[in-house]
Amino acid sequence: MKRIYFDYAAAAPIDPRVIETMIPYFIENIGNPSSIYIEGRQAMRAIQDARQQVANLIGANSEDIVFTSGSTESNNLALLGAAFHNKNARKHIITSNIEHMSVLETCKLLETQGYEVTYIHVDHEGLIDSNDIINAITDDTFLITVMYANNEIGTIQPIPEIGKIAQEKDILFHVDAVAALGKIPIDVEANHIDLMTIASNDIYGPRGVGALYIKNIKNRRIQPLIHGGGQERNYRSGSENVPSIIGFGKAAEIAKKEMKSESQRLKGLRDTLIEDLLTNIPSTALNGHRTKRLPTNANIRFKYVEGESLVLNLDMEGFSVATGSACTSKTLEPSYVLMAIGLPHEEAHGSLQFALGRWTTEEDINRLLEVLPGIVKRLRAMSPLTPPELLSE
Amino acid sequence: MKRIYFDYAAAAPIDPRVIETMIPYFIENIGNPSSIYIEGRQAMRAIQDARQQVANLIGANSEDIVFTSGSTESNNLALLGAAFHNKNARKHIITSNIEHMSVLETCKLLETQGYEVTYIHVDHEGLIDSNDIINAITDDTFLITVMYANNEIGTIQPIPEIGKIAQEKDILFHVDAVAALGKIPIDVEANHIDLMTIASNDIYGPRGVGALYIKNIKNRRIQPLIHGGGQERNYRSGSENVPSIIGFGKAAEIAKKEMKSESQRLKGLRDTLIEDLLTNIPSTALNGHRTKRLPTNANIRFKYVEGESLVLNLDMEGFSVATGSACTSKTLEPSYVLMAIGLPHEEAHGSLQFALGRWTTEEDINRLLEVLPGIVKRLRAMSPLTPPELLSE
Repeated sequence: MKRIYFDYAAAAPIDPRVIETMIPYFIENIGNPSSIYIEGRQAMRAIQDARQQVANLIGANSEDIVFTSGSTESNNLALLGAAFHNKNARKHIITSNIEHMSVLETCKLLETQGYEVTYIHVDHEGLIDSNDIINAITDDTFLITVMYANNEIGTIQPIPEIGKIAQEKDILFHVDAVAALGKIPIDVEANHIDLMTIASNDIYGPRGVGALYIKNIKNRRIQPLIHGGGQERNYRSGSENVPSIIGFGKAAEIAKKEMKSESQRLKGLRDTLIEDLLTNIPSTALNGHRTKRLPTNANIRFKYVEGESLVLNLDMEGFSVATGSACTSKTLEPSYVLMAIGLPHEEAHGSLQFALGRWTTEEDINRLLEVLPGIVKRLRAMSPLTPPELLSE
Repeated sequence: MKRIYFDYAAAAPIDPRVIETMIPYFIENIGNPSSIYIEGRQAMRAIQDARQQVANLIGANSEDIVFTSGSTESNNLALLGAAFHNKNARKHIITSNIEHMSVLETCKLLETQGYEVTYIHVDHEGLIDSNDIINAITDDTFLITVMYANNEIGTIQPIPEIGKIAQEKDILFHVDAVAALGKIPIDVEANHIDLMTIASNDIYGPRGVGALYIKNIKNRRIQPLIHGGGQERNYRSGSENVPSIIGFGKAAEIAKKEMKSESQRLKGLRDTLIEDLLTNIPSTALNGHRTKRLPTNANIRFKYVEGESLVLNLDMEGFSVATGSACTSKTLEPSYVLMAIGLPHEEAHGSLQFALGRWTTEEDINRLLEVLPGIVKRLRAMSPLTPPELLSE
């Protein structure tokens, strides 16, 4: 049975065109980029090319791109690096309550180190009201960190508005753009973004590589997280992961070229999926904003069923779908993002996240729409919570 | 012209058998190991298998292996994690002056945070005298961190002796075993090692993945360096780099199987290289210990020549060789390791590191031995420092 994959937000295949650029650097084109013999010089050039490709995707200067091991490290570097920078006497951070765990857990750590964090509450569609940010700013605020779009419910935040506010108040603005990268246009300059986290696998590049954009890197001071040989302008020590960096660059190049048409295509599939499910399965609703939404994301709640049962039943039918947060769906807690938009426990538990991607086809969507209503009906028939009138429909 | 590679210590090709195990996880076997659908469960199982393979190579329990992004991160996690662990009231660290930059720079950072570090001086062959360690221990010492073998000069430290001392004094013992892994047998249990840094590329696995061994992980407390989704028992958050972890596992399996015969073979080539160069080129000497030495390492100093000129001349003849520290050879400073063993500036500058590896052949060595004496002779003829009697030889 051909598997149908709807968990692109958690783990994506590498584009074969990307693999092709990486393979030579596995065996033939080795060499330490810090070395002066020819393979070393070639590796250094290849890294610079990749840096330019990644920069092009977000409207940045290539020198402002620092390669890291991925989004979690980049978020840690941005927050801890900005906080621990010696000359920074201010101690207040503003974020939201639906950020990625790597932001929230790092904020929690900073709270134990004398920092104060305001967690802005999002509305029932997952949106931040930028007035709430304005109201939260104090003289002590040195950092606003907000995700571009939520990985779980797909809601896109008013980043341009928040960027303007941060700039006017001279506050560092960090954006976790991992979920948005390659799906919607991102321009760090136009949006006054100072620090931005991006990662490779989310644009069909290899795992284990990401970047932190650091605006005007030459004049900025962010304390490094990982210390050693001084690679990446001393912001990230450790021998460069040359093949993965090259793959990230190629993935960024492809994303830039294909984003517009591909996002259009996926938006169409996503809308079919959402509309069909909400129309044909009673007592369902969309989580997240209807239009301010990633083209790849459909997050649906099904009343009176358990998300885990849905996942396992879909798995048996050949579908890979996530429930809860992509990163932590093994925990028994309901998704904190779904709780934050005001869902009761049982509805958060009964939600599925469909993350579409580059290889999602119309047939995949149609096949899901054929299978899912029956599964929901069967599970509801087994649940004591289901109202009788729903079963007789 | 076929290139001949002698910089395996800085960057190694991935073994094709390793690539073969990784490829399926690039495209087909994707899936988030935290997810409950079949691809997720398979990824989790594959990670556990890799953990076991890596553990087998160092005589560890698989549960005590924490995957990281590489050796630099592992060294940072070990040192910062041990230092920042709340309950640790002791503030003194013992290390050596020839550790990897990721240890030395992290020690420097800790010195700015109220920690005291003793840097044991090695002797002229790069050896630590374990009596110096005993003499450096105070009631405040909580950590001894020593590398198993030096990446640059190949000297192997008396790890069993130091492990015993640390155990008797109830001091944490961290070993950076990156250069030694897969080249000499390592047993964490027998050597009383509490924390050990290892990395994948040094055993012909992919770059960008390494591990920290944490003895008896369940009862230990090391503060995480990177915070987020709680992967790797909360010691290293961030989505697992599944293909690279699997590649690391396979590389460890191969290393375990082939280490004995392969090290024997390389030792023979290394000895030919050292003896021939020292015999046939006057005013040369070996850096590092003659016998307590990695089977893959030959580090030779050539009086009256610049290492950089040697590297560039060898490069033109098709050889890739490093001068100075593998990681930082672009800096103009002479290698701090060569300075630490007492070489004057000019002799440190005139040293070459030959790092042999899995694909080094007898022909490679012979070809080098054909070419190098002529290069040295030519460069010496151009140097005003060369004594006339050497030129007339």
